[in-house]
Amino acid sequence: MRTIIGIDIGGTSIKASAVSPNGRLLCIHTAETPKQEELVCVLESLVRLCKADAVEAGASAAAIGMGSPGIISTDGKVLFSNNLRMRNFDLRAEVEKKFQLPTSLLNDAFCATLAEYRFGAGRGVKNMAMVTIGTGIGFGAVINGELFTGTNSCMAGGHIITHAGGLDCTCGSKGCWEMYASASALIRIAKGYAQKYPESALNAKEITGLAVADCVRAGDRAASEAMQEYIANLGDGMVSACNILRPERMVVGGGLSGAGELFIEPLREYVLNKMFIGADYAPLDIVCAQMGNAAGIIGAAAYASRMIE
Amino acid sequence: MRTIIGIDIGGTSIKASAVSPNGRLLCIHTAETPKQEELVCVLESLVRLCKADAVEAGASAAAIGMGSPGIISTDGKVLFSNNLRMRNFDLRAEVEKKFQLPTSLLNDAFCATLAEYRFGAGRGVKNMAMVTIGTGIGFGAVINGELFTGTNSCMAGGHIITHAGGLDCTCGSKGCWEMYASASALIRIAKGYAQKYPESALNAKEITGLAVADCVRAGDRAASEAMQEYIANLGDGMVSACNILRPERMVVGGGLSGAGELFIEPLREYVLNKMFIGADYAPLDIVCAQMGNAAGIIGAAAYASRMIE
Repeated sequence: MRTIIGIDIGGTSIKASAVSPNGRLLCIHTAETPKQEELVCVLESLVRLCKADAVEAGASAAAIGMGSPGIISTDGKVLFSNNLRMRNFDLRAEVEKKFQLPTSLLNDAFCATLAEYRFGAGRGVKNMAMVTIGTGIGFGAVINGELFTGTNSCMAGGHIITHAGGLDCTCGSKGCWEMYASASALIRIAKGYAQKYPESALNAKEITGLAVADCVRAGDRAASEAMQEYIANLGDGMVSACNILRPERMVVGGGLSGAGELFIEPLREYVLNKMFIGADYAPLDIVCAQMGNAAGIIGAAAYASRMIE
Repeated sequence: MRTIIGIDIGGTSIKASAVSPNGRLLCIHTAETPKQEELVCVLESLVRLCKADAVEAGASAAAIGMGSPGIISTDGKVLFSNNLRMRNFDLRAEVEKKFQLPTSLLNDAFCATLAEYRFGAGRGVKNMAMVTIGTGIGFGAVINGELFTGTNSCMAGGHIITHAGGLDCTCGSKGCWEMYASASALIRIAKGYAQKYPESALNAKEITGLAVADCVRAGDRAASEAMQEYIANLGDGMVSACNILRPERMVVGGGLSGAGELFIEPLREYVLNKMFIGADYAPLDIVCAQMGNAAGIIGAAAYASRMIE
């Protein structure tokens, strides 16, 4: 068996595992994300551990697939990554040189999309899109069975404009979707409603996305109104993405998707209701992601598998 | 030589011509658009004229490609067309049965996109998008060299939401791009500024898109402010479309594109400035359409050519 080493490079930690062809992880190893100068060195120790796992399982490691936040060019350069504090760094080439194995690097939202498509909530369709709700909005798409990332892999679905002339976005534009529909946006919205309703249970705890969902479940008025406003914001961007890409399935991932149907059901109703001609002539499923935290590793490995097929 | 008969079915008139493999029109024949019951009959007389043109040129007619406004399913049914007052009509099958020639039917915005891609402003790239500014906003895309129309051809790019919670759209949603960026929207916006500035030259004429452009050229303040607001509206939707599809080229068509660089230059500056990471890492051209009124016929024929290759 030939495994692929999948590596998920995050802003605070790095996770790596040898991954079998059917998407199974042999063993996850982790390390803190170091400064850029020490990154290849830390990756080296992780790759060595993963290789040993592969050998122990009677397998080999045939390629390395890495995923990271930021704008990654099609040839695997980190053009810009806020989280990794990197700019124009040819990480893919550095790692490939070190290990003499075919190596790829892909944006983490695209990795998650590919993982869901191959092994998770995206199986069985040829056209899907995925939204990952976190500090920002990650977005990816599969078109005709192939990962689609746009020219030089610069697709940035989180930056569609839903509120023209609205809040300043970090990207320099105004009114971007992620300013209204990220987990950070939900927290901002919930804080506003908590102030409006001093009796709200939201005032008694640290406000996180899942805390808001808990309060909705308990019937809290501030939380319910906040969630309704947030779902409209998230839904408006999903309507836009669906009207352009018209996928068969939309997968929603990120921490908030842990709230499950409480959150997905009203979102589904909102989007199907506002989407062009609804789902009458072109059905659309809206479902929760299934791959959880392993999506980054598995998707990175899945992307690398193209190089050895 | 084998020609294809291209037919552009509009709300008020039908235009048809035999089209050579390199996109040349032999002779355009036109007819008024009749009621649904008489449509196939009118198409029959047009097809007969086009066939005669082909024979006269020493060629044959190998297929029929039709384009029409509305939502056309992948298998060529008119699911819904406001302009043609049709619903669930299997126009493609009716015509194919009549003429015993391979026949296709495609949405008119998709036809225009394909015409520009093959023979016009879209040549030389593999990923492009096209916006057609008219009563609404038509939208089409080519991805990896193939026309992309979404599940069951239901892509509706004019209905991305740019102004969440904004104006009611005919589609049942609110704040759709086409409510803010169609030619009708420009006229509405210009009327507002004409009222605000009674001395404006706009008050002396019938307000059309090109009339507004003429007044901008003459230095009229109301027209200039209206155009600026309109370009921001059009630009915000183009930013969204570009951030999702990240094409190499965006082609702008419709009557207003006749205003040329007066209109395209500020639009280009607006979009490149707001687009995610600008064009630094993934260049984007924004250009005027080149195919003019023949785009519908040529694109319809180009789409049909797939059936006989």
